[in-house]
Amino acid sequence: MDVVRVGVTAPIGFKASGLFCGIKKLRKDIALVVSDVPAVAAAMFTTNTVVAAPVVVDREQMALGGKIRAIVVNSGNANACTGERGMNDAWTMVKDTAEALGIAKEEVLVSSTGVIGQYLPMDVVRPGVRAAAEHLGPDGSGAAEAIRTTDTFAKEAAVRCAIDGTRVTVGGMAKGSGMIAPNMATMLAFVTTDAAVTREVLAAATKQAVDRSFHRISVDGDTSTNDMVAVLANGQAGNKLIDTVGGPGYDAFYLALEHVLITLSKMIVMDGEGATKFVEIRVTEAASEEAAAQVARTVANSNLVKTALHGEDANWGRILAAMGRSGVTFDPTKVEIDFGDVPILRSNYRIEFSEEAAKEVLSCRDIAITIRMGAGDASAFFWTCDLSKEYVAINANYRT
Amino acid sequence: MDVVRVGVTAPIGFKASGLFCGIKKLRKDIALVVSDVPAVAAAMFTTNTVVAAPVVVDREQMALGGKIRAIVVNSGNANACTGERGMNDAWTMVKDTAEALGIAKEEVLVSSTGVIGQYLPMDVVRPGVRAAAEHLGPDGSGAAEAIRTTDTFAKEAAVRCAIDGTRVTVGGMAKGSGMIAPNMATMLAFVTTDAAVTREVLAAATKQAVDRSFHRISVDGDTSTNDMVAVLANGQAGNKLIDTVGGPGYDAFYLALEHVLITLSKMIVMDGEGATKFVEIRVTEAASEEAAAQVARTVANSNLVKTALHGEDANWGRILAAMGRSGVTFDPTKVEIDFGDVPILRSNYRIEFSEEAAKEVLSCRDIAITIRMGAGDASAFFWTCDLSKEYVAINANYRT
Repeated sequence: MDVVRVGVTAPIGFKASGLFCGIKKLRKDIALVVSDVPAVAAAMFTTNTVVAAPVVVDREQMALGGKIRAIVVNSGNANACTGERGMNDAWTMVKDTAEALGIAKEEVLVSSTGVIGQYLPMDVVRPGVRAAAEHLGPDGSGAAEAIRTTDTFAKEAAVRCAIDGTRVTVGGMAKGSGMIAPNMATMLAFVTTDAAVTREVLAAATKQAVDRSFHRISVDGDTSTNDMVAVLANGQAGNKLIDTVGGPGYDAFYLALEHVLITLSKMIVMDGEGATKFVEIRVTEAASEEAAAQVARTVANSNLVKTALHGEDANWGRILAAMGRSGVTFDPTKVEIDFGDVPILRSNYRIEFSEEAAKEVLSCRDIAITIRMGAGDASAFFWTCDLSKEYVAINANYRT
Repeated sequence: MDVVRVGVTAPIGFKASGLFCGIKKLRKDIALVVSDVPAVAAAMFTTNTVVAAPVVVDREQMALGGKIRAIVVNSGNANACTGERGMNDAWTMVKDTAEALGIAKEEVLVSSTGVIGQYLPMDVVRPGVRAAAEHLGPDGSGAAEAIRTTDTFAKEAAVRCAIDGTRVTVGGMAKGSGMIAPNMATMLAFVTTDAAVTREVLAAATKQAVDRSFHRISVDGDTSTNDMVAVLANGQAGNKLIDTVGGPGYDAFYLALEHVLITLSKMIVMDGEGATKFVEIRVTEAASEEAAAQVARTVANSNLVKTALHGEDANWGRILAAMGRSGVTFDPTKVEIDFGDVPILRSNYRIEFSEEAAKEVLSCRDIAITIRMGAGDASAFFWTCDLSKEYVAINANYRT
């Protein structure tokens, strides 16, 4: 499995573009990803009860069960909480894209990210869609650029793997830096692959990989109305069709997909609003993977844990207190905690760490926290960041 | 119902003391509350799986079903995550208190708050307990002072009501400023009353009043290992025994108890670490009180809502997005939101507020947010504060 440089256009048969049309101020704000041939698609959406218009449209499109050829995305305006007019605007983006590309409107997904509660400026969006269709090319970085909001860098990844001797590529791009939480808070990810895979298998692989990537990151515990992950598989690699979960070719494909999703997920956390630390939480010796993930999630979302990490203090008490309110039952006297390679807490509340050694681990930008629950052999990873004054500043003074 | 000045010693037959014994640096750190006669007791404890030694001890004491005469509390050290030695230390505090007061050890509750994971300095705690017993008096403010940790002010309340022509008083003190969340995060409250009431009725009234007060406040969503609310009723007012929920005298007593608990709860939020705003969230037109409380809780705990309030921005989109992830099902097009008296969002996403009017409401220290769900006629209140850079500073740099 080799890591390759580019994103959504890394697999065979995908083109993309990213342009400035005028929604934002002087930064790229419209992106288009197109497959040369109709592609099998899988998509997952926000679990928020309040959903933006594009999510409603995409759910309908996916429910048709057909293939998808294009994804059009704008940034700067989320087209959320905008009622009937917002729905019409989302459908107009779909139709304009289909028309510009000469494909059926059932083959288009749409996505928006940015400010909530304002109407899309369709007078600039519609010419923007047409221009994006005219500028499609083999370089996906413009598209990754154009889906950014408060992101400080464009997020792209891609890997290649061999399936039955055939080279298969998975590529992707994502955006998201604030409002990140389990259940895919304001987070968009668009993934492409030239693998030949059935719709059912792609859906199953996507669900599991999302559970282990985008559902395992947290910046601030808030969830957005617009989140989505969409995966297009156009079969252009020419591998033998992967038609069974766990069957021939599945594992190699799944690992490549999971790798891209985890890489994009980690980039989102690294770009967390105001983040100065990237923290990997590894919960092991849990009774089940769900229990491990739930404990890791609660620790990762604790403001007290996140501020202690910001202050570079080895506060295992806050970690244990957060674990205790996770809803998972466990014996606290069995818990052991390491920061990096430094043992912090041992069973029966034994504490014998050197403040200097802990401080050295915590002074790094990347910090790994290992929590052994002593309750079984399941484990889960979770990625989060610290909570800084800068986060407050970004989210309190975003208007100025 | 009159509000009176003092706290736990306002009702007839209670004495208290608060002293410095040496756990903290030069600030009072040990408190004692004593009833002249054995009192009926009700207590509620943290729901955290990780519980401190004093909570384990008190659960055992309460399970005996007898009466209580004294509550001994230290601040500066939570006696949490300290294993067998911590349990012995908590029992020693109970026994020393009983001995100093000449009462049975089954009549004593114990509580600790402060740093987690360090042993209690029993060489100063034990003489501290004896000194507290010698300094009992009619002024409860020393005790309220002595249970503080990061609290910036002592929290006391009391009210009088008439039950069948007899004057009954309820008084109380509380501590808590960080780690405040639903489910009684690091929060202690000790309430006294001279009402004559049965144990069963006191337990029921306490549970309901706690559900509507301490379970309706949030500073940072974290929950502690030491929380408890204890209520002692010594019957010295001489009212006719209140022996039925909803029966004679119950409503007046319940309202007085709820008033004290809500007053103490609000004080905790007002003293929230780094808080510059006190925010009352009123959810109305909900399908049930539970749904209203759950929606209010999710909005109150949203870092994005709290930072927007800190920045004094009327961001109804963040409120609606938080409602959407609360787990409560509702129709977002029916939701209406007011800030103070200013209509912000109307049904079908109509927005027509003046930025100036909204700004004026948001620039105040006290802010009321009303959310009408259009789904029924139940309602709930919730109290929270904003999230400031100061919160991060307090919780990141608490060591220095």
